Amino acid sequence: MRPNNFNAGPAVMPIEVLEEARAELLDTAGTGHSVLEWSHRSKAYDEVRWDAERRLRRLMGLPERDPWRVLFLQGGASLQFAMLPMNLATPERPGQYVNTGVWSKKALEEAVRLGRGVELWSGKPTGFDRIPEPGAWRAREPAAYVHVTTNNTIYGTQWHELPDTGGTPLVLDASSDILSRPMPYARSVLVYAGAQKNLGPAGLTIVALHTDTLARPAPGIPAILDYRVHAEADGIYNTHPTFAVWLMAKTLAWIERSGGLAAIAARNEEKAALLYAEIDRSGFYRGHAQPGSRSRMNVTFRIAKTELEDKFVKEADAAALLGLKGHRSVGGLRASLYNALPLESVRALVEFMRDFERRHG
Amino acid sequence: MRPNNFNAGPAVMPIEVLEEARAELLDTAGTGHSVLEWSHRSKAYDEVRWDAERRLRRLMGLPERDPWRVLFLQGGASLQFAMLPMNLATPERPGQYVNTGVWSKKALEEAVRLGRGVELWSGKPTGFDRIPEPGAWRAREPAAYVHVTTNNTIYGTQWHELPDTGGTPLVLDASSDILSRPMPYARSVLVYAGAQKNLGPAGLTIVALHTDTLARPAPGIPAILDYRVHAEADGIYNTHPTFAVWLMAKTLAWIERSGGLAAIAARNEEKAALLYAEIDRSGFYRGHAQPGSRSRMNVTFRIAKTELEDKFVKEADAAALLGLKGHRSVGGLRASLYNALPLESVRALVEFMRDFERRHG
Repeated sequence: MRPNNFNAGPAVMPIEVLEEARAELLDTAGTGHSVLEWSHRSKAYDEVRWDAERRLRRLMGLPERDPWRVLFLQGGASLQFAMLPMNLATPERPGQYVNTGVWSKKALEEAVRLGRGVELWSGKPTGFDRIPEPGAWRAREPAAYVHVTTNNTIYGTQWHELPDTGGTPLVLDASSDILSRPMPYARSVLVYAGAQKNLGPAGLTIVALHTDTLARPAPGIPAILDYRVHAEADGIYNTHPTFAVWLMAKTLAWIERSGGLAAIAARNEEKAALLYAEIDRSGFYRGHAQPGSRSRMNVTFRIAKTELEDKFVKEADAAALLGLKGHRSVGGLRASLYNALPLESVRALVEFMRDFERRHG
Repeated sequence: MRPNNFNAGPAVMPIEVLEEARAELLDTAGTGHSVLEWSHRSKAYDEVRWDAERRLRRLMGLPERDPWRVLFLQGGASLQFAMLPMNLATPERPGQYVNTGVWSKKALEEAVRLGRGVELWSGKPTGFDRIPEPGAWRAREPAAYVHVTTNNTIYGTQWHELPDTGGTPLVLDASSDILSRPMPYARSVLVYAGAQKNLGPAGLTIVALHTDTLARPAPGIPAILDYRVHAEADGIYNTHPTFAVWLMAKTLAWIERSGGLAAIAARNEEKAALLYAEIDRSGFYRGHAQPGSRSRMNVTFRIAKTELEDKFVKEADAAALLGLKGHRSVGGLRASLYNALPLESVRALVEFMRDFERRHG
């Protein structure tokens, strides 16, 4: 039996995708050898990457071609934290960051290190338990962009709507909730996401950007870190992480045949509602995020008697409920409910939580 | 039947490694789920990465621990072209490059773009057909390092011994011949390599460095591009390309049980000798590289009647001899003979070449 995998990423993948991958691993697409062995410049791989790109554009609500470009890069969101201000910001026209948690802060810090970032708002005073209310911050012109982390994996908060930036270009780190729900990405100018939550395995980062972001030259930055260099090379400046792109294409196809984002979002809501209801039921558990800011991807909670948390994680692990320990920087408990996590896993967790409460409550 | 895969990278992988990967793809190491779904901070993945690191150190002839560190990064050699001068060089103390071909030149260009690189020698006057003779260049002090590309994938030349730098620290791009032969890497201070030739699939870059290279602070560079940040995070600052590391560990184990580097090198010499003998036999084919500089990994050649080359590639492809077209920047023909390529594939190529010559000679 497969364990119930609540890991925050790399994370559970659709079993159908894994089975397809296994079936084709030694002989992919009838080529007689493995996709792992294909040239990244081969016709066979070209078909894979354009298929992945077409599906991604469709699901993200982006046009089929310009003015949007899609890049398949490496280095994770962490590399984008640096590439973004290097390419788009200047000391005079900095990137402006809404700091809703650890990953927002890391993005901000890379921009600040380059002298090109300012913090517009911080959730620190309330322990990063919320997304700011409309009007709580405003871009300070001149601004290169406003940066928002759409879902905060570690604190378990999520933007349920994209913010109004009053005309300042919006940049989104969508790593941990991309394609978990319909979202008007085309209202932003750049979206980046590590693949290892909802898109596929670790080792692939997608960047979708409006060609406006390529207009201003960014002299002196290394070619490999220059969005324009990647865009001008038709999205394949250097070797792609080909296997990860192939698995992403399969994952995107799985989303489409599962009913698309509306159906995926409904399932994600159902899973999250079930778990939050259990957290709120008796007071034995306590949710970290404010109700209006709760994430449907990463549910963070504590046990009122915090000394029981270690025992909870150990017993859960023994019951094949994996990855429930909160991030090492904040502690507590966390259940990640990405697209591929079955409803049955949440049911199993809820049942375990009730049993644990009966025994220790 | 598997095709004969002469791709320059991503490239042929050992069939035993692919079969192991398939067998474990849905249930890895008895965990009940896939390595693709494991957390990069899990105990199971920790075992994989330390196993990979131990094997890599052993095969590279590096000590088991300090003063050498091993990093598993992303972004390919192309990202190292930038990270290297950012971390190790300054305008006053530049990186110094021996330019033996396209990839050397790209490495040099990134350093020059940062104002921290100079060219010591260039193979351009003779069409990059050779490695420089001893004494043809000397580091100009003060120098941060001398950079050498140990094997030139595109021109088909290879350093058969590491150069004497007269005490200047040596840095090696070993992407296309790492672990193809015994090599005293510990004589250098930093070795980097994309995995997609001899180590595993695309999407993983290994960097082995002496702790001396971490001594000098490199202020203002992004955290993600700072070798010290990765080293201080015990080699796992951000999410690893976990599947690629897992496949690398299996590939390294395959090298070890195949008799280690001495046995691998003997096989590689046999394969290369067979092909070069055919190229030299009649004058119908012509090798690009000077005999003393010939690569055992990438054999570059022309047909004396160059107008036959397109036909050669097409007919070879139809005969399941794949990837023989020379790199788009130089043309001609190229056969890459990485560790995993069976001797039988070279025999099949030689037979095809004779037949082609009979028909068109």
